[in-house]
Amino acid sequence: MPEVKALFFDMFGTILDWRTSIGRETRMILERHGSGHAIDWLAFADAWRHEYRPSMDAVNAGKRPFMKLDVLHRENLLKILPRFGVTGLDDATIDAINLSWHRLDAWPDVAEGMRRLRTKYLLAPLSNGNISLMVDIARRNGIAFDAILGAEFARAYKPQPEAYERSCAAFDLAPGECMMCAAHADDLVAAAATGMKTAFIRRPDEFGPGKAGPLPHERVDVLVNSTTELAEKLGV
Amino acid sequence: MPEVKALFFDMFGTILDWRTSIGRETRMILERHGSGHAIDWLAFADAWRHEYRPSMDAVNAGKRPFMKLDVLHRENLLKILPRFGVTGLDDATIDAINLSWHRLDAWPDVAEGMRRLRTKYLLAPLSNGNISLMVDIARRNGIAFDAILGAEFARAYKPQPEAYERSCAAFDLAPGECMMCAAHADDLVAAAATGMKTAFIRRPDEFGPGKAGPLPHERVDVLVNSTTELAEKLGV
Repeated sequence: MPEVKALFFDMFGTILDWRTSIGRETRMILERHGSGHAIDWLAFADAWRHEYRPSMDAVNAGKRPFMKLDVLHRENLLKILPRFGVTGLDDATIDAINLSWHRLDAWPDVAEGMRRLRTKYLLAPLSNGNISLMVDIARRNGIAFDAILGAEFARAYKPQPEAYERSCAAFDLAPGECMMCAAHADDLVAAAATGMKTAFIRRPDEFGPGKAGPLPHERVDVLVNSTTELAEKLGV
Repeated sequence: MPEVKALFFDMFGTILDWRTSIGRETRMILERHGSGHAIDWLAFADAWRHEYRPSMDAVNAGKRPFMKLDVLHRENLLKILPRFGVTGLDDATIDAINLSWHRLDAWPDVAEGMRRLRTKYLLAPLSNGNISLMVDIARRNGIAFDAILGAEFARAYKPQPEAYERSCAAFDLAPGECMMCAAHADDLVAAAATGMKTAFIRRPDEFGPGKAGPLPHERVDVLVNSTTELAEKLGV
């Protein structure tokens, strides 16, 4: 794969274990607050994440202007809190819970994998998460990105082609010189449609132990189990 | 200054010694090409830089759409080459000369100064240079930015207020929580007008030995001689 010059990463699920991180963070805040002692925290994380795609679809359909994912996450949080019996929180507590997404932990292979990949490739997130969210996550997990690209830069959420195309163009690269790396087949299908190369990174525990999303039906250029295996496959 | 959370940097002149770098790079390419043996290379750099502001003014005045600085640099290069007696270059050579801006060297204090500043602050360029240009310069000079903000992200060149305001907003920060660091008084005047804090970094040799731009007439929050002195003043 000599022509690839930049690697773009999906973040939630591919790089970040959002489920156990959100479970831990929301539990910490709400228990400290005296709410939610009987909540199934991983079910809470799943329910919050379940609102993710529909909230962006409304933006992609042109029904709402583009806004930061933090804003959509907060709206979605307000939807699910009453379902788990949590009511009457003040704004500061709701904001603190919402910022749980800025405190996600990466999968164990990521720090080493990204360090190795960066010796040869430009690296950027191509996530629907906003810039401040990506910045906090990069700092927390010791990931050195060359730039924060993706939805907020492109003013379009994946799987809109603009999200991919504008991110490649920011590096002065054609899509064929860029590889999209994701644990989600639909993300890679959309990336490939713009001409990007694709790497599927399996994350079998994303939705719980042994509960991965579906494997890709379409051809991908690389299929690996971790970012370190990706580094190996790419010879770095 | 406890409330400042992010430092934004002007790059050309403040962080980067564009003049000797452009002189060196253009000389290397054109002499290899067999052109320009009698050229005063620093005068060439000055002439190229002299076209910088007017070319962006046309964009800021709404006479042209926003475009990457690389595009404006190339147009400006085509204007000045004949003035120095260089004609008949092929496109690949013109492109190679144009990319000299991606190979600028930082002033000697920058690597250490930025490393220290990053222990406490978010760091980003707030430059008129495009993202790929900033990415190449950061790699070359070992600068770890949290994100590449500024003109291409904001789709507005400094001193348009949007260039500053949108960069602060990307970090979820109010302008008063951000400090603009620059060697140019007019940059700081425009930043202060949006509510940003200001640091003037003196670069007495920017336009040649002892040829700095004017000192600020307006009040600045910090006035230093280097990024390491800035780190010291900010207690890191």
